[in-house]
Amino acid sequence: MKFIVQRQQLISSVQDVMKAISPRTAIPILTGMKIEAKADGIILTGSDSDISIESFIPAEEDGMINVEQIEEGSIVLQSRYFPDIVRKLPEKTVTIQTDENLNVTIQSGKAKFNLNGQDASEYPQLPRVQTDDSFEISSDLLKNLIRQTGFAVSTMETRPILTGVNIKIENETLSFTATDSHRLAARSIPLEGTRLDSSNIVVPGKSLNELSKILDDKGEKIEISVTNNQVLFRTKHLHFLSRLLDGNYPETSRLIPDQSQTVLHIKTKDLINTIDRASLLAKEERNNVVKLTTKENQLLQITSNSPDVGQAAEEVSIQSIEGEDLKISFSAKYMLDALKVIGNEDVRIEFTGAMRPFILKPVDDDSILQLILPVRTY
Amino acid sequence: MKFIVQRQQLISSVQDVMKAISPRTAIPILTGMKIEAKADGIILTGSDSDISIESFIPAEEDGMINVEQIEEGSIVLQSRYFPDIVRKLPEKTVTIQTDENLNVTIQSGKAKFNLNGQDASEYPQLPRVQTDDSFEISSDLLKNLIRQTGFAVSTMETRPILTGVNIKIENETLSFTATDSHRLAARSIPLEGTRLDSSNIVVPGKSLNELSKILDDKGEKIEISVTNNQVLFRTKHLHFLSRLLDGNYPETSRLIPDQSQTVLHIKTKDLINTIDRASLLAKEERNNVVKLTTKENQLLQITSNSPDVGQAAEEVSIQSIEGEDLKISFSAKYMLDALKVIGNEDVRIEFTGAMRPFILKPVDDDSILQLILPVRTY
Repeated sequence: MKFIVQRQQLISSVQDVMKAISPRTAIPILTGMKIEAKADGIILTGSDSDISIESFIPAEEDGMINVEQIEEGSIVLQSRYFPDIVRKLPEKTVTIQTDENLNVTIQSGKAKFNLNGQDASEYPQLPRVQTDDSFEISSDLLKNLIRQTGFAVSTMETRPILTGVNIKIENETLSFTATDSHRLAARSIPLEGTRLDSSNIVVPGKSLNELSKILDDKGEKIEISVTNNQVLFRTKHLHFLSRLLDGNYPETSRLIPDQSQTVLHIKTKDLINTIDRASLLAKEERNNVVKLTTKENQLLQITSNSPDVGQAAEEVSIQSIEGEDLKISFSAKYMLDALKVIGNEDVRIEFTGAMRPFILKPVDDDSILQLILPVRTY
Repeated sequence: MKFIVQRQQLISSVQDVMKAISPRTAIPILTGMKIEAKADGIILTGSDSDISIESFIPAEEDGMINVEQIEEGSIVLQSRYFPDIVRKLPEKTVTIQTDENLNVTIQSGKAKFNLNGQDASEYPQLPRVQTDDSFEISSDLLKNLIRQTGFAVSTMETRPILTGVNIKIENETLSFTATDSHRLAARSIPLEGTRLDSSNIVVPGKSLNELSKILDDKGEKIEISVTNNQVLFRTKHLHFLSRLLDGNYPETSRLIPDQSQTVLHIKTKDLINTIDRASLLAKEERNNVVKLTTKENQLLQITSNSPDVGQAAEEVSIQSIEGEDLKISFSAKYMLDALKVIGNEDVRIEFTGAMRPFILKPVDDDSILQLILPVRTY
């Protein structure tokens, strides 16, 4: 194998592929990165068996030459050193070459590295996703869907299914839902002209988090294909493959209250700042609790109390309040997580009493829904 | 005690004083911050008994009012929450007030915190440095002296005296020296018009490191006063007090070779980049070793070899070479540390054979000296 590649292209592909490589894995060769040179370009592959990422550097694209002097072949390189080497090489191009003893030479200007490679035929074959069940979405929209729901997955392995995000297609609507059973985050968008008219899968939160990191914000098209146990996210030069979680995702729609006793409209930023401050004194507790109390004159009071440390109290103006007066306690962390992804200047909060779950939505927009269970404080 | 203070002033003073406060300390009250209100301003104090920092906020300065409505008094506040509270308060001013039960109220706009304070009379009295043995230096110069030597102190407690920097005044010269017995870093500057004509102290490297973080780069004057067991660094609004290390600092001048067999002049940046790359393959070893070999045609070769991983080799051009050919191995980390503080485009390296310490200096400047012991590789 031999090729000369533009170093910037190689750096960016290596960075993407590294997201799938873990230094601790049951299959030793997966700590390495597979490099394949083909006539039309270079493919880098990384995998931790849950996630696999393939990045393609085309030999030529838009009239630009990325890879030259290609002699086909493949090798697996230790990923511990390769990214740093590529990043620190001195010149604009890098020559990578292997010999029959699996020695790899990496050269750029006067700098030359010899690394011991491994036989690429020992690298596990990635599953091929062959399906017509696919739909398209833009990368910035997908990143938003992940950002607005992914934080709410469970981090506990007691109910493994809750560590994933439930992705559903139904009635030309795509919805993402995550819950750790103390809170729930959901977002839905219309999906038109898809061949896939129904689908219901659970993707590990960790996979979506890594995917989000390597997607660009430029609105590139992503094709999402689903099979029994795998989902493939495919852009022009990137294949991101994740296993699915087994089992049925719980039916969450019945958790969402369909009536309310108290409805507030408030500036999202004001409420974030006030709760952030009130929660300072309770920061060592895992879910620091604050109390919200409705007051006269369109005011809310946010308070917290940590007997050893002291108290915090702050009043904040609301845009409007309808319904009954209310005192309710909740996790400041859950509330802040939810408020930060509302994505609207004004938030609508609907309460159904101090002991019932309450919901947050952007004002005049039902596509985002955040639900939080209150905390008993008596 | 009561006062109203400009929040930005308070934030910056609190930040400085926090550098001396450790959450783990044998004297519980030292986990807190002392706040004293006096007619002419506010004094904040933090201490871990090795380092003590006092920051003064004058009530009025350059016609600007920093503190208003002062009622004298003092209190000790838990430092775990206070900095975050001050940082996140909503308005430009903060009102701090205590009552007779040591309750502290911190208020800014509609946000109000009540914290439990501690009696300031229980806070240890800081030692007062009363001495005429003082000299002045500008803050940017002091920061440079610390940066160019402090990294070379020992991190091992086997010879405690080596964990400090030796600061000496002799013949109107101020010198800083640090060594961990594998390398040495020294810098000296002329010191004119000082009343202090000789001094020889050892200041903990950690103290100087913290001091360096809170000094500005604007060349503010710093007065340094020395007593038996303390050194005080004093700027207009800051007192930084550190204990000294007991014992005699070893005589280091005899370690420095006074002749050389091979002298190189080389671009500092070129050598940094080359050694940085060559050391990549050995990064898990504590002192990753690289080898330098002189070649024909004004070239140096830098190589490294990690049997499990591979080899790196690179040639780099030198400006000039005098004397004998040379092969020598050394810690890439020590070499990079030294090169990074040379502060000159060109570095002069003087070798006295493969098994003898070698020295680095800026070309045409003897005020900075870096010494490194080579590593045996056979």
